[in-house]
Amino acid sequence: MSEHIRQTEPFRWEGIAVKPYKSEGTHFAGVTRQTLFEGGDGLACDLRYFEIEPGGWSSLERHHHAHAVMIVRGGGRVLVGDHIVEARTHDLVRVPPLTWHQFRAAGDAPLGFLCMVDCERDVPDRPDDTALAALRSRPGVGEFIRV
Amino acid sequence: MSEHIRQTEPFRWEGIAVKPYKSEGTHFAGVTRQTLFEGGDGLACDLRYFEIEPGGWSSLERHHHAHAVMIVRGGGRVLVGDHIVEARTHDLVRVPPLTWHQFRAAGDAPLGFLCMVDCERDVPDRPDDTALAALRSRPGVGEFIRV
Repeated sequence: MSEHIRQTEPFRWEGIAVKPYKSEGTHFAGVTRQTLFEGGDGLACDLRYFEIEPGGWSSLERHHHAHAVMIVRGGGRVLVGDHIVEARTHDLVRVPPLTWHQFRAAGDAPLGFLCMVDCERDVPDRPDDTALAALRSRPGVGEFIRV
Repeated sequence: MSEHIRQTEPFRWEGIAVKPYKSEGTHFAGVTRQTLFEGGDGLACDLRYFEIEPGGWSSLERHHHAHAVMIVRGGGRVLVGDHIVEARTHDLVRVPPLTWHQFRAAGDAPLGFLCMVDCERDVPDRPDDTALAALRSRPGVGEFIRV
């Protein structure tokens, strides 16, 4: 990549494609992905920018790798493990290994966040019926999650 | 660290200390460091926030590890190798391995940026007289650098 990449309009960058979040599925809604920095050549992590449109949500999943997230646009709610946090612009969210998580935008504005992640990482798991039942038994979580 | 860390005032976060940039030296001016995410437990990188006060500068240095930078507050100029880029809020700057670099805030506002870096990394080198002479011979660079 070039050494200097300009933001061309809010949260869009020259030469960086706005891609679908995942290739297929109905377990997420209204999410795009931009890879701001790809690892390699002295960097062990990628830095991605995800944007969830108002009312949208990311996939409910977990994996061995961790996520380090900074909200940079708008706000929303995030399931981290067994509880939901209300995250605003510039708040930080750490998703530890093997922790269920899901991001949801507020209804009136997009939620944009940076997500730092190891280049070498495992494929996410989605919850089976047993895991879903356990999640749904937790206060507030049952109404929150989308699958 | 906690899974959710709130921003308490602009570019300050609950429980995250505002530290000196480096322990000593006169080769930098007006720079603070905050470690937003420390690697380990499923993360191979750290994410730091640096803030340079108006007119200040970071150390002129290079190393084998790379830097992935996003400007998040204000703007400034950055030496990357043999040229200077003008970076604004949300612009991205990648510093490849073994590339001389220095950040300078504009005169009227602080420059704040995120910097993603491998947890395991080498110690920076500063330029010797030969390297400095080479840098100073480049158009615009001689006036820019501070040592």
